[in-house]
Amino acid sequence: MNSALLDVVQSGLHTVDLGRQLRVGMPQSPNHPQFWHTLPRRHGDMVRADGGSAANDMISTGTHVGTHIDALAHVSQDGKLHGGANAGDSCLGGKYVEHGVHTIEPMLKRGLLLDIPAYKGLPDLEGGYEITVEDLQGCMASQDVEVKAGDVVLIRSGWGKKFAEGSAYVGGPSGVPGISEAGATFLAGLGVHALGADTIAFEMLPPGGGHAQLPAHRILLVESGIYIIEALDLEGLAEQGLHEFLFVLVPLNIFGATGSPVRPLAVVPA
Amino acid sequence: MNSALLDVVQSGLHTVDLGRQLRVGMPQSPNHPQFWHTLPRRHGDMVRADGGSAANDMISTGTHVGTHIDALAHVSQDGKLHGGANAGDSCLGGKYVEHGVHTIEPMLKRGLLLDIPAYKGLPDLEGGYEITVEDLQGCMASQDVEVKAGDVVLIRSGWGKKFAEGSAYVGGPSGVPGISEAGATFLAGLGVHALGADTIAFEMLPPGGGHAQLPAHRILLVESGIYIIEALDLEGLAEQGLHEFLFVLVPLNIFGATGSPVRPLAVVPA
Amino acid sequence: MNSALLDVVQSGLHTVDLGRQLRVGMPQSPNHPQFWHTLPRRHGDMVRADGGSAANDMISTGTHVGTHIDALAHVSQDGKLHGGANAGDSCLGGKYVEHGVHTIEPMLKRGLLLDIPAYKGLPDLEGGYEITVEDLQGCMASQDVEVKAGDVVLIRSGWGKKFAEGSAYVGGPSGVPGISEAGATFLAGLGVHALGADTIAFEMLPPGGGHAQLPAHRILLVESGIYIIEALDLEGLAEQGLHEFLFVLVPLNIFGATGSPVRPLAVVPA
Amino acid sequence: MNSALLDVVQSGLHTVDLGRQLRVGMPQSPNHPQFWHTLPRRHGDMVRADGGSAANDMISTGTHVGTHIDALAHVSQDGKLHGGANAGDSCLGGKYVEHGVHTIEPMLKRGLLLDIPAYKGLPDLEGGYEITVEDLQGCMASQDVEVKAGDVVLIRSGWGKKFAEGSAYVGGPSGVPGISEAGATFLAGLGVHALGADTIAFEMLPPGGGHAQLPAHRILLVESGIYIIEALDLEGLAEQGLHEFLFVLVPLNIFGATGSPVRPLAVVPA
Repeated sequence: MNSALLDVVQSGLHTVDLGRQLRVGMPQSPNHPQFWHTLPRRHGDMVRADGGSAANDMISTGTHVGTHIDALAHVSQDGKLHGGANAGDSCLGGKYVEHGVHTIEPMLKRGLLLDIPAYKGLPDLEGGYEITVEDLQGCMASQDVEVKAGDVVLIRSGWGKKFAEGSAYVGGPSGVPGISEAGATFLAGLGVHALGADTIAFEMLPPGGGHAQLPAHRILLVESGIYIIEALDLEGLAEQGLHEFLFVLVPLNIFGATGSPVRPLAVVPA
Repeated sequence: MNSALLDVVQSGLHTVDLGRQLRVGMPQSPNHPQFWHTLPRRHGDMVRADGGSAANDMISTGTHVGTHIDALAHVSQDGKLHGGANAGDSCLGGKYVEHGVHTIEPMLKRGLLLDIPAYKGLPDLEGGYEITVEDLQGCMASQDVEVKAGDVVLIRSGWGKKFAEGSAYVGGPSGVPGISEAGATFLAGLGVHALGADTIAFEMLPPGGGHAQLPAHRILLVESGIYIIEALDLEGLAEQGLHEFLFVLVPLNIFGATGSPVRPLAVVPA
Repeated sequence: MNSALLDVVQSGLHTVDLGRQLRVGMPQSPNHPQFWHTLPRRHGDMVRADGGSAANDMISTGTHVGTHIDALAHVSQDGKLHGGANAGDSCLGGKYVEHGVHTIEPMLKRGLLLDIPAYKGLPDLEGGYEITVEDLQGCMASQDVEVKAGDVVLIRSGWGKKFAEGSAYVGGPSGVPGISEAGATFLAGLGVHALGADTIAFEMLPPGGGHAQLPAHRILLVESGIYIIEALDLEGLAEQGLHEFLFVLVPLNIFGATGSPVRPLAVVPA
Repeated sequence: MNSALLDVVQSGLHTVDLGRQLRVGMPQSPNHPQFWHTLPRRHGDMVRADGGSAANDMISTGTHVGTHIDALAHVSQDGKLHGGANAGDSCLGGKYVEHGVHTIEPMLKRGLLLDIPAYKGLPDLEGGYEITVEDLQGCMASQDVEVKAGDVVLIRSGWGKKFAEGSAYVGGPSGVPGISEAGATFLAGLGVHALGADTIAFEMLPPGGGHAQLPAHRILLVESGIYIIEALDLEGLAEQGLHEFLFVLVPLNIFGATGSPVRPLAVVPA
């Protein structure tokens, strides 16, 4: 194949891993089944006559754990999913056939990082801080990037540094920084394909407020059909000053599920 | 960013999904925990005061189910993993730290399809048929492709058509076609990065033979450090006659696991 | 405490275990999540400074596996549960609050074994054989036992011998012996508290018929409020000729579940 | 059967449930996989032609959750299990064959409640309080009960009232009351069959000390072969002033596991 694509690839790529490692005990929302991994069979448990042995795994987990993507079926508003489908009836045989995660196409898209704390000259944003439309516009201008229809936009708050701390990352008393209704409306208006953040719930959570209100989820998943990517590791992109890249995300093709753990990549020429 | 990469991507891509959909009841090896997906919370179970509702998932599964990749830690021979590590000691705290699936880098590689039945003028290969070195060489010549170091080579037997039939796909009495010791040695000698097939165990299984002997696993995983990808859907590539492509595979970053379900992609310019 | 109860107990008891051992790979209905047990932590994985070490487990399973009891919420007919509750509405927040397994009181009841093959002078009953009302009545007479209201009646077919064979136990092509509509109606009329059998589905399954029709489940669970106990091991009782005993069954108190694995006991004075 | 046992049973029994209800979100040790229950199939998901429908469950859980029993294989000391078996070698094929929970016989034993706060005239004991040998002896005297070989002794601290509070029950900063090395040695010396408590770790945990040291586990499980029952609900027995009873405990027969959730009963004549 005479392929410009392969030529570019083979001329060398630099890949930044935006996914969190899946480890037992990592911070996650208590609303979802905890991630567990264990080895039912270890080497030596059963050795074949020829000296060969195989080890294997068992995983029990929710799909909204670690770095993950929300399918449109994840959230409903007033009994309706995106496009107006009845949320109750849309579950056929125990599967979300219409807007399940199996309906999300693998993404090879233009990706943009909006590094809000860098723009604001802060080490990171504080719990409960709402990233405003002005913040988003100012950041784009300062980074000299323009959001185009079909882009995937990743919003860095710096909160991701807390992932290693465990429960502090989840927020709770401190709240979590992020965009809210205004920011979601603004970015949806630009026709983005998906939005991501370095926090567990993507959007701003007020101190102690928990998940009582999630307006950005409503605007993006229900009203706009825009996917949400949560718990991204954006520290590497920020350190390297990478604001534009090829964004690669391939959800697991789980029939009828509301989300999937993912390991997104940001790719640039080496 | 003035990026040839983004230019190529945005000039249009054609993506072929090589992964099987993860569905309860799909065929899998009985050696691994069965794939199950269920919805702990459906829309309507708990509706917030503002009319919002979230549905979620629970997954219980092995990692060697559906389309998946084997980490080097999956197989040992005579008590040793690839590189000679003691297979027993290599499990630290219940995790394969050294050769676990978390050590597999995401792949953006040159991919090749070797369509053996097309080369042999057969609809597909029969259970228990061993794909020979001559088959591999003849197929490469007829397709006019050359395997280079670092490539990912996918070997089509046509057996994947049986995936929808359930247990017939697993083989058992019929056996399963594939390469064996000679083919694995030949391809390993070409310096491939990973090998894949459209069968559940990658290599030839004799009728009724089961998994008593897996020489290709030993040669590739233990002796050569070459990853194995199983249960690929190669029918789309074959129908479209695509033999060379950008191969994209991103394993879940599960610390210490022996494998991961994956959804590989073959990408070419549109 | 001056207790006749403790006196009897301490004068010596003989206990017969009616439960199957829970093992990975045991036969079970494919309709339910497979039983899996694995050790996330083994001794030596993590040793405390004082030399102590703890091993632990992870279980993933359905509740209708191994020897188990069906809660009334397990089955509905024409959209209604026992007592007429709407089957759809009765699931509150993803739990069967009304007739879930948590509503089954622990049982210390008079238990009776009806050993049908012994009565009929057969080694065991054949797949698809329907145990008739005449069989039940004849067996009671030959055993000189009378069923009273509140009793737990266990019906032996001899099929339990196949448990060790795996899939043969499940039935499928062969069908499975058991009572059907007539037998269930007759025993319900005697006011039994619960019924059990040594088969996976309790009632007769015609060869190749699978679970397309389960009239005994409808009559017992939906119409009569009588619990069903499945996959009992009744071989020990039969060998010892024990037809009357104290029946002890303690379901797990799983809030809102449709069943529970159980380990019932038959107890007699030593 | 002319059975004094059945006569006593049918003359009426009063049963006190000593098990906690298994609910998603209940307090448990973070060392063990979290208890989760979900309904893969609800009524209406799949209705048979005859109008029948079955709902079912999926459970994912550790075995040391809710009210549970520790098998002797749960704890090792200096690489040895009870009886001196090598803790590493004792795991055969991923199962604790020798001292797994499948080796615990169902219990129908004389049970005693030692209500320590009642004896001491306190509402309940404080976190970190060590129940002394004097406390145990004084309580027995005040209750006028004598511990005999083979008895099951349940030690109430009153801490069980916190179960509904969630994390407070687990202890952590507050510590948890219970016996420690001296109390375990004393009770082991009396030849008890099993010991239980209304706390999550059975023995005293110092404030903030966590599970760094568990001397009572070592003395009972490793040195003495005495089973430990944790997270009992002893409030009902205390309120009713029941100090002596028939204790019924039937562990799940899980091959090779280190523990089992249980639902123990205290039974007295009505």
